[in-house]
Amino acid sequence: MPDYQATYDKLCAHAQQTAQLSTTGDILGWDENTKMPPAAGPYRAEQLALLAGLVHERATAPQVGDWLAELADSPLAANQQSDAGTVIRELQRSYDRKTKLPGRLVEELTLASSLGQQIWGKAREENDYARFSPALERMLKLKREEADAVGYAECRYDALLDEYEPHETSANVGRVLQSLGEALVPIVEKIQGSSRKAPSQILEREYPTAAQEIFGTATAKAIGFDFDAGRIDVTTHPFCTTLGPRDVRLTTRYNERFFNSGLFSILHEAGHGLYEQGVPSEHFGLPTGETVSLGIHESQSRMWENLVGRSEAFWEHFYGPAQKAFPQALAGVPLEDFHFAINESKPSLIRVEADEATYNLHILIRFELELLLINDDLSVDDLPAEWNARYEKYLGITPPNDADGVMQDVHWSCGLIGYFPTYALGNLYASQFFEQAQADLGDWKAQFRQGDFAPLLGWLRKNIHSHGQRYRAAELVERVTGAPLASKALLRHLSGKFGSLYGF
Amino acid sequence: MPDYQATYDKLCAHAQQTAQLSTTGDILGWDENTKMPPAAGPYRAEQLALLAGLVHERATAPQVGDWLAELADSPLAANQQSDAGTVIRELQRSYDRKTKLPGRLVEELTLASSLGQQIWGKAREENDYARFSPALERMLKLKREEADAVGYAECRYDALLDEYEPHETSANVGRVLQSLGEALVPIVEKIQGSSRKAPSQILEREYPTAAQEIFGTATAKAIGFDFDAGRIDVTTHPFCTTLGPRDVRLTTRYNERFFNSGLFSILHEAGHGLYEQGVPSEHFGLPTGETVSLGIHESQSRMWENLVGRSEAFWEHFYGPAQKAFPQALAGVPLEDFHFAINESKPSLIRVEADEATYNLHILIRFELELLLINDDLSVDDLPAEWNARYEKYLGITPPNDADGVMQDVHWSCGLIGYFPTYALGNLYASQFFEQAQADLGDWKAQFRQGDFAPLLGWLRKNIHSHGQRYRAAELVERVTGAPLASKALLRHLSGKFGSLYGF
Repeated sequence: MPDYQATYDKLCAHAQQTAQLSTTGDILGWDENTKMPPAAGPYRAEQLALLAGLVHERATAPQVGDWLAELADSPLAANQQSDAGTVIRELQRSYDRKTKLPGRLVEELTLASSLGQQIWGKAREENDYARFSPALERMLKLKREEADAVGYAECRYDALLDEYEPHETSANVGRVLQSLGEALVPIVEKIQGSSRKAPSQILEREYPTAAQEIFGTATAKAIGFDFDAGRIDVTTHPFCTTLGPRDVRLTTRYNERFFNSGLFSILHEAGHGLYEQGVPSEHFGLPTGETVSLGIHESQSRMWENLVGRSEAFWEHFYGPAQKAFPQALAGVPLEDFHFAINESKPSLIRVEADEATYNLHILIRFELELLLINDDLSVDDLPAEWNARYEKYLGITPPNDADGVMQDVHWSCGLIGYFPTYALGNLYASQFFEQAQADLGDWKAQFRQGDFAPLLGWLRKNIHSHGQRYRAAELVERVTGAPLASKALLRHLSGKFGSLYGF
Repeated sequence: MPDYQATYDKLCAHAQQTAQLSTTGDILGWDENTKMPPAAGPYRAEQLALLAGLVHERATAPQVGDWLAELADSPLAANQQSDAGTVIRELQRSYDRKTKLPGRLVEELTLASSLGQQIWGKAREENDYARFSPALERMLKLKREEADAVGYAECRYDALLDEYEPHETSANVGRVLQSLGEALVPIVEKIQGSSRKAPSQILEREYPTAAQEIFGTATAKAIGFDFDAGRIDVTTHPFCTTLGPRDVRLTTRYNERFFNSGLFSILHEAGHGLYEQGVPSEHFGLPTGETVSLGIHESQSRMWENLVGRSEAFWEHFYGPAQKAFPQALAGVPLEDFHFAINESKPSLIRVEADEATYNLHILIRFELELLLINDDLSVDDLPAEWNARYEKYLGITPPNDADGVMQDVHWSCGLIGYFPTYALGNLYASQFFEQAQADLGDWKAQFRQGDFAPLLGWLRKNIHSHGQRYRAAELVERVTGAPLASKALLRHLSGKFGSLYGF
């Protein structure tokens, strides 16, 4: 009998060393986005490409395939949810996907992504869709090739979705998003028709950056983000990146005349960061020490940003400190006005600025269009008109130009197709998880009011974070909540919150 | 005839790609020292070790040896000071040195360096030389082995010195340092005997960090440091590191109650940074795009820190802005008091805090002791007594304990033996270069007074920076100043400055 354990150990050591190299690339990326002097860009791109090449070479090394083949029918792989079973299953999945893509296609995708992003940036600046469309056309062609190389059972889009949300299908996502969309439109209409208006101007008063930084950091710390193993910096586009088992970096942006930008970006990214800090660090670089999917990841960020961070109970604890931190803006403003303001809902053009009620309609539009594009059922030339028609249909507004319409997001330009649905999945999972957490935690509002977020974080650690990739997303949701992915929990949350704020 | 050009191109591409990888390691190091959260240390060490291993593997790859062997007698190598000649000569030198060391010794040195530093840190904290001495003993044994593996003509120490100051010999350094030391002792005595005292307390008033940061950055910019291709951060021990052809990072530390710490560290590191920004960026990763030696590097930092940054003409320009930046500390203080204060000289225990007049005596002591230790002419047990005796002899003071005596510097603990002399060489070269620059620049004092440092920087670019490693240090000094390394220029500068300040 072969020495399966020895082979397994080699496989793990190899994967963990590959992670050391890929997180090195992530450090380069973090620095590029936060600290790097402007003229250093071209050389940094070369360094990143070199690292990416080394990582790809290691990840697709034939010996990895040999080890996996040897282990496939071994006792170690028998229980798919044991540590070893999880590691073997998920490394096999990732190895298969990577080795199915011809090297030529990988290179063309890398190049098209880099060029596409540059072209998109200029085209968006100049509101010139005609300039962008050939790059998009080319990218779609390559992504269809990618999907065909990876393979799929029913729908080409599944092969792309699978990269970000493993094992999820477009049929299932389509069904849930469609039912969500149908229920959201009347909610959004009721909000629009309400005579109540959120006093949003109080968020546009003076919020000095230094005070936002102190308040935001203290808040992230209070909800449990460990600054011994992480930090917050400033970027144009907030993100969270993990540079090692005890090194999670968040970023945010501060707007002195708009409170939401800084703090809710911090809460969102800290939600991602708490997940990263919660997976077992001794398994770092192995599937047992990695997060499940982008959808599950987003469920954590959206929970802390919205379900926690925009709740009344949260602000019953933090509003006092906020008034102290921003006396010029908030002195004399009642808590309920502030709470209404940070929960203002109105149809808007730009996804990243959308509120909880309208956000998922932005995603539904993108998902529908991606499906059509990938299946060759919609031409790139007709895309802007279809985009605008859907904004009219779902949100009752029409973009005045393509820059703030079809060209607003970077994703398509750099090949992130199949990625958008994970944002909506995140919102759906978040509500399902949070309902269950509420049931399990007892008087969670009292806990929040006292600034005690340890019970919720402990619940997330135990039920979600600690498992790494042991369960697939769909399994995890069923296991934790007893029900499959569905739109009900999110709709209950949105109707409840906005019904109470807007009086319907 | 072999295609020498093709071989040469492969050699260069390989070296430049190796540099992409080694600067990636440098980014990890920069981040570790400036931004990394505390708990991330152990994983970062693993990443750094992995990168170092990959770089070493590439740098010592047998194909590099083959290419160099093929090129050794080719027309490309014929002119040692052509681009190709320089590249072949210096890559051969570096390849030989690296491949002469057995892998076992490299690993033992790496381990001993890391452990040695930790033991030194604790031993210094507890003033416990007996705890440190076995680690030092072990390090000396390994460094002797290293020297023997590298080989040398006359003196074992030469093989170690050569790593930091290529082609320099201990005989030559010893001769110059000895003559410098003999002349310095009476200068230091005259300063000590003077009735004039520097009004140094004005530097210990309140200097708010934020104001220091703005003033220091503006000053670095004014002398020519390019912030499009660099930045300044905060660390415990200031340094300069180059992360790419257009990415030079400086660090400093601010002490709110001592002006010198922040600004003179910035000027020192900016001096290093101007050199790094001045080598030809298109040759980055090749000897034609690299700096000559630690001594020449230090000549640039010490020139901007001391010869420029502590000169009267410099402050005739910057003192107005300084008074504006630090009104609480400097309002009403005459320029000549400030200038005297920043040039205070008095024998002190700690090298890194020493003034221009006494600094090189600290180096002479270390150099003498290193020679004795490496040649087995002094035992580790007898080292503290010898250290103290020399401080008494050269500086007239005796360390009260080993922590502030023989254990004050990290260098020996991590194997940096043969490194100290480059600090003194830097001071010597700096004075020689600066005398020549003064002669070439015309009314340099008027230029400084007007805040115009472009003529000096242009002179350094043309005569020193732009050559990369085309000339060895000794050749460069002769070429630029018409004279070999000597102590006269430095002594003229010190006698002139301190004679005028202290009245002798």
